[in-house]
Amino acid sequence: MNFRFNILFVGLLLSIFGLWGCRGTPEAVDPLPSWGATAPRAAVLQFVNRVTDPNGPHFVVEADRIAVFDNDGTLWSENPIYFQFDFAVELARQAVIENPVLATREPFRTAVSGEPVEFLENGAHDLMELLLVTHSGTTTTAFAAAAEAWLRDAEHPVTGRSYPSMIYQPMIELLRYLEANGFSTWIVSGGGVDFMRVFAEETYGIPPERVIGSEVELAYEIGPGGGVLIREPKFFSLNDGPSKVIGIHRRIGRRPIAAFGNSDGDLEMLEWTAAGDGPSFCMFIHHTDAHREWAYDRSSKIGRLDHGLDRASEEGWTIMDMKRDWTTVFPPLD
Amino acid sequence: MNFRFNILFVGLLLSIFGLWGCRGTPEAVDPLPSWGATAPRAAVLQFVNRVTDPNGPHFVVEADRIAVFDNDGTLWSENPIYFQFDFAVELARQAVIENPVLATREPFRTAVSGEPVEFLENGAHDLMELLLVTHSGTTTTAFAAAAEAWLRDAEHPVTGRSYPSMIYQPMIELLRYLEANGFSTWIVSGGGVDFMRVFAEETYGIPPERVIGSEVELAYEIGPGGGVLIREPKFFSLNDGPSKVIGIHRRIGRRPIAAFGNSDGDLEMLEWTAAGDGPSFCMFIHHTDAHREWAYDRSSKIGRLDHGLDRASEEGWTIMDMKRDWTTVFPPLD
Repeated sequence: MNFRFNILFVGLLLSIFGLWGCRGTPEAVDPLPSWGATAPRAAVLQFVNRVTDPNGPHFVVEADRIAVFDNDGTLWSENPIYFQFDFAVELARQAVIENPVLATREPFRTAVSGEPVEFLENGAHDLMELLLVTHSGTTTTAFAAAAEAWLRDAEHPVTGRSYPSMIYQPMIELLRYLEANGFSTWIVSGGGVDFMRVFAEETYGIPPERVIGSEVELAYEIGPGGGVLIREPKFFSLNDGPSKVIGIHRRIGRRPIAAFGNSDGDLEMLEWTAAGDGPSFCMFIHHTDAHREWAYDRSSKIGRLDHGLDRASEEGWTIMDMKRDWTTVFPPLD
Repeated sequence: MNFRFNILFVGLLLSIFGLWGCRGTPEAVDPLPSWGATAPRAAVLQFVNRVTDPNGPHFVVEADRIAVFDNDGTLWSENPIYFQFDFAVELARQAVIENPVLATREPFRTAVSGEPVEFLENGAHDLMELLLVTHSGTTTTAFAAAAEAWLRDAEHPVTGRSYPSMIYQPMIELLRYLEANGFSTWIVSGGGVDFMRVFAEETYGIPPERVIGSEVELAYEIGPGGGVLIREPKFFSLNDGPSKVIGIHRRIGRRPIAAFGNSDGDLEMLEWTAAGDGPSFCMFIHHTDAHREWAYDRSSKIGRLDHGLDRASEEGWTIMDMKRDWTTVFPPLD
């Protein structure tokens, strides 16, 4: 009998410790090991402690703990050009191989003959046109398969890394830390939603229903194997600037309490987040590390951060200085 | 010591039963008490048992257990006219009180002088026009407040019940049953998303981010108190028929495995659900109970179910006959 009770007693202790483990204090293990001991780290920890303290004046119920993240330049790199644009160039090359006459027409001509960054010199119109012509005319399923293959095989022209390995390790830690504290995390990006969904779940742990991005028109058609969704060569929504606020309303239907961006295109999203009734946290990632990543801000053609820097100072939003505040940028390669 | 061990032993037993309770077999307590012992109930239970059995050939991981529900006629009643339309008529009356000259203009004239159902005789155009003019020109916040007040105070013209009390008790049980089995439940309705979100969480337990519906254009403007979203008098999306499939793709990004509707406008949603690779479950609610609710199908101006009935027979989808299959329709009044 004694033996049996001992077994039960040990079982009970294990149960108690098991429960304790589930509710473990976040301080027990450093949740943000890639963040240096500087102000942004302290600000994040303080905010999370405040909104999760049920006895404090700033408590926020879990349903309202919504955190939104820009993608390009906030969760992964965006230089020398947005990664999705490299994918569009690859699709243009494939299209020219299949139909060589396209090589004489824009935007294919620049895509296959020049340096893709030339598109940036020519302004946004050609870039948008290239995205549209290469990202339409297929089913959503075929498009996702093409993006998946490219993301698996392509190498970044500067680092030689795979694109999904150019995510920011500190931001992955931040996503997991917020989720462990009852937040729901959402991507709110100018990137294409169907492109991001291909890697967001595996790379960031963010499922398709929590990815908000730009969208093309879709048509439902009955094919030989049943219904399919065809991508049309027309934008349905361009999710940048004030449209990010609209996208948040359409998709989430609640105001976020935390927002993370890196460019002027994220300004309204942060502004909207900060204007809520309760506590809020807004952060701009400032690209200051030319050695480990890139350094750019007010005059960049990619991810320009100009008005945003001024507003952040005025409003007291957190500016994360990559060189100073992150001990690691990219995750270690396998 | 014996006493202490007894306490521990009882504690352990309680823990075990507690855990057992959490994982409790659905059969232990009837999860669908308002469903009669007829075929639809058995079909639902069988489907859920199949997709949740980790050792069976039809197992579906939780992330893919997505169930979509039409709203009008599927989760609550829709007669003699869609409830949101009654709200639009009330808004039109208020607008005429504030600005009497409107009483001479359509669609206000019919809204305030005639029977609202006249709109149905005149076709969809006037109805859409009334929805647009009454549902725009305000902030999203003011619109939600107006809808909330109306839903709290208004009485249904036939039953005298509040509108939110005209939900279907068996469908509420079904939502909870599916959620208890790892499903995520979504509303996919032709109704306005910002109207439905006002009551969906309290009434159905479905949060704003899982409500998909028709949408108007929105504009982000800076007002005296900060940024606001203004509802514009133009539709951004009309979520009916094939557009429901598109809305599911845009908002969820995965194909559902279960779909519930009641009209031909839900046909493509069921078709898309049924065409997935794995197991699927499709159900039409057939309004057959003129005594407890309404009876209508192939020739109704509201919620017409014609092609859908034929397709359901052809495809072997479940047809839920309200008169035969539900022991209760509406929840008891407090």
